[in-house]
Amino acid sequence: MEAYLDNSATTKVIGEAKEIMQKTFEQDYGNPSSMHLKGVAAEKHIKASASCIAKLLKVEEKEILFTSGGTESNNLAIIGIALANRRSGKHIITTAVEHASVLYTMAFLEEQGFRVTYLPVNDRGVVELQELENAISDDTILVSVMYVNNEVGAVMPINEISQIIRNKKPDIIFHVDAIQAFGKYEIYPKRQHIDLLSVSGHKIHGPKGIGFLYIRDKVKIKPILFGGGQQRGMRSGTENVPGIAGIGKAAEVVYSSLSQNVERLYELKDYMIEELEKLDRVKVNSSAGRDAAPHIVNVSFVGVRSEVLLHALEDRGIYVSSGSACSSNKHAVSATLKAMGLKAEEIESAVRFSFCIFTTREEVDYALEVIKELLPVLRKYTRK
Amino acid sequence: MEAYLDNSATTKVIGEAKEIMQKTFEQDYGNPSSMHLKGVAAEKHIKASASCIAKLLKVEEKEILFTSGGTESNNLAIIGIALANRRSGKHIITTAVEHASVLYTMAFLEEQGFRVTYLPVNDRGVVELQELENAISDDTILVSVMYVNNEVGAVMPINEISQIIRNKKPDIIFHVDAIQAFGKYEIYPKRQHIDLLSVSGHKIHGPKGIGFLYIRDKVKIKPILFGGGQQRGMRSGTENVPGIAGIGKAAEVVYSSLSQNVERLYELKDYMIEELEKLDRVKVNSSAGRDAAPHIVNVSFVGVRSEVLLHALEDRGIYVSSGSACSSNKHAVSATLKAMGLKAEEIESAVRFSFCIFTTREEVDYALEVIKELLPVLRKYTRK
Repeated sequence: MEAYLDNSATTKVIGEAKEIMQKTFEQDYGNPSSMHLKGVAAEKHIKASASCIAKLLKVEEKEILFTSGGTESNNLAIIGIALANRRSGKHIITTAVEHASVLYTMAFLEEQGFRVTYLPVNDRGVVELQELENAISDDTILVSVMYVNNEVGAVMPINEISQIIRNKKPDIIFHVDAIQAFGKYEIYPKRQHIDLLSVSGHKIHGPKGIGFLYIRDKVKIKPILFGGGQQRGMRSGTENVPGIAGIGKAAEVVYSSLSQNVERLYELKDYMIEELEKLDRVKVNSSAGRDAAPHIVNVSFVGVRSEVLLHALEDRGIYVSSGSACSSNKHAVSATLKAMGLKAEEIESAVRFSFCIFTTREEVDYALEVIKELLPVLRKYTRK
Repeated sequence: MEAYLDNSATTKVIGEAKEIMQKTFEQDYGNPSSMHLKGVAAEKHIKASASCIAKLLKVEEKEILFTSGGTESNNLAIIGIALANRRSGKHIITTAVEHASVLYTMAFLEEQGFRVTYLPVNDRGVVELQELENAISDDTILVSVMYVNNEVGAVMPINEISQIIRNKKPDIIFHVDAIQAFGKYEIYPKRQHIDLLSVSGHKIHGPKGIGFLYIRDKVKIKPILFGGGQQRGMRSGTENVPGIAGIGKAAEVVYSSLSQNVERLYELKDYMIEELEKLDRVKVNSSAGRDAAPHIVNVSFVGVRSEVLLHALEDRGIYVSSGSACSSNKHAVSATLKAMGLKAEEIESAVRFSFCIFTTREEVDYALEVIKELLPVLRKYTRK
């Protein structure tokens, strides 16, 4: 049996997305900037995808900008806002548990003279709101907080954060990295007062190499790539029509039965957590129930190094992640688990299981069964 | 009949590329940064593609960096070099006829305090070498010149340029935008003393949304996207495995029978130019023969506005371009034709025909026949 439980790293492309991409490879292969029919046919795919995504988010089509993925979306949001608004201030607020594509972009801006505050999180990985209130100052221009943490599934209090911003300094721009949340939550940027929202295609059964950034109309932002002026000058380069068509289709499919899917994922998660908590020296780092995301179960199997368990599970056809797996530095210590105050032995033994809408109870049962079998053996082996 | 003669704008994806991409959607869909087998399988596609491209260019695999396309390649080359070497000088040399992704990146750097010299070209669109010699100064850090001009197919004297650099100031870094040249020429960066080389996937029958940048080992360059540290820290973001596999396969196929393909393209080009020059008030802006690229025929049909002819041809299933079509500003005046000294009436009536390896003599004949039929009608119509 095989159980791919690494869906927060990446997901399989669904049939509907593959189908429309195929059409853009063979038939509608024109350059969207071309004035003739082949160009127009390609452009239609872009409009259809933007329109579909805009409807899901209840925003306008022109507020959707396609990028090469989540990393570019986060880079563009943060650098683009910082450079366009530096005259209003050079202070940015984020959290200590953001994805590398936020944290290292912040580090780049620090080199450029910006000041960045990294908010701490509690033992469940959730940012402390009082700390945000204290951090906002006269020169704060941007707050960037992730919707769902990619390592443990902690859900950040997005609505409370935007409320605090509106109360304390309403001209602060609010960016949300929703890469692990899109496809799991109903997200409405206008209602939630989110100014920018990053999404990645390959986390929602779309292709790799595509993402989008919602940019609220009238937000002052500068491009980070220059050229032919595509996408209203905000993102030059011939549009990745197959990718754009693919992410639109994937979003449509994933949201077409969101509540049933999410319901099922919560059941799976809670079941897995319940079963794992019965085991000896196992610490579940993800919260059960609605307080955390439905698809991520981070667990420390104290006494077994993550990599050892990962490879033992792999031998049995079970694919999981140690750390976030979105980083090429495969042995880096998890910033999230550290910020949550976990002990070294808990960090070193942490494994992430992550589900998708196709994950079955059978797969979870199989993983549990194998874990129960392997754990005593590996612990014995590791002790020596 | 249909004749797609806009291959410099974009090309159809070939079967071999589609096939391998399909495999990465369905089977090898893992995240290359994942430590398990699914990740390793995905990583293998990246290594295979890099290795194939490296062999074609006779460079090392680690010198190939994948990007989201030609625009990102050019942006990364120019901004990355400028920011990494600003202490050595703030002067950059390029030409007046570069692609928008070079020209607007230069404009961005001018805003950042860099000084940019735009070299003029002669009436065939070729850069003047004496002007380059004169322009090089003590603080010149970068020379960026395209291999083949995208609008008229002019070929720049790349080897002579690198020779001048080595004679006058060998520490200058030499970037070549080879987006219209790769797949048409044997390019060997080491032998030709090219430090960076930009290539785009969708110009060579690969997919859109992927490109690469050859970066000579030890060249000092900074990344422009920050995050998980993929591709040795030079280009963060989960790798676009399908795109990477697709561009590698397309490159392999295109180069597997390069000389025959190119031979055939030259014949087609020279034939088309010969036939067009027989017509009244028609000025061919591309050079016949080996002095210019084999696949681009730019022609002014004086007395007929480009767009009018473009749409009249489109009605007959012939797809061509007015201007470069790589720009979203569909009505911008061509910088290349202007720099070549063309008259306004020649610029306004210029149309670009561009071939690919699948273009047939029948398609060219069909286009010629329709042009001969339309031209007198359109001229009569336009005069009123």
